[in-house]
Amino acid sequence: MTTDSDTIFGKIIRGEAPAEKVFEDDDLIAIRDINPLAKVHLLVIPKTFIRDISQANESHKELLGKMMLVGAQLARDEGIENGGYRLTFNCGDDAGLLVPHLHLHVIGGQKLGAPA
Amino acid sequence: MTTDSDTIFGKIIRGEAPAEKVFEDDDLIAIRDINPLAKVHLLVIPKTFIRDISQANESHKELLGKMMLVGAQLARDEGIENGGYRLTFNCGDDAGLLVPHLHLHVIGGQKLGAPA
Repeated sequence: MTTDSDTIFGKIIRGEAPAEKVFEDDDLIAIRDINPLAKVHLLVIPKTFIRDISQANESHKELLGKMMLVGAQLARDEGIENGGYRLTFNCGDDAGLLVPHLHLHVIGGQKLGAPA
Repeated sequence: MTTDSDTIFGKIIRGEAPAEKVFEDDDLIAIRDINPLAKVHLLVIPKTFIRDISQANESHKELLGKMMLVGAQLARDEGIENGGYRLTFNCGDDAGLLVPHLHLHVIGGQKLGAPA
């Protein structure tokens, strides 16, 4: 599956821009954030284009659940499951959303601040 | 469905402890956080007991997706969709997990800090 997302994530999914991929299957890719906020900072991105979580609907329910399970598995793979980690969707300016293509942050590897 | 969760969330689900509920169906409840980190701070909680996101498995995929969709709907209902909001699972000490019963934070209504 490819995407027509006109964002850096769309370019990465189509192989038009580089990224350090840590996971890929038919539905998702996961990459390292190029501006990590913690020792481990990954992004889980659906190949199908959804702008942000506010645009997700019933038809995306399984995909969203899979994003969480893949995020948790990647945390396990990165060795941060025991210490702890955070899975976060940002939506809109108040949350600091930068790229308008849905992505789940997987953040950990160190003590994190408050989630707000 | 009830839960055998021996946490404050278990007590709230069973009606043994008070909370300001903003949503309830067969699978989930949502309440206002009693120590809000922002103007809007809700928690979406599955009635079935899952300790945290690291304990979720394939059988929970739809439930996790539903938690995201309900979180996004509640943000819409609270009038914070346009400004923006954050949906967050914390897992473990590094992320500041306090109650060992899975819960999704819905946080917004004001400019938020970094998610780490």
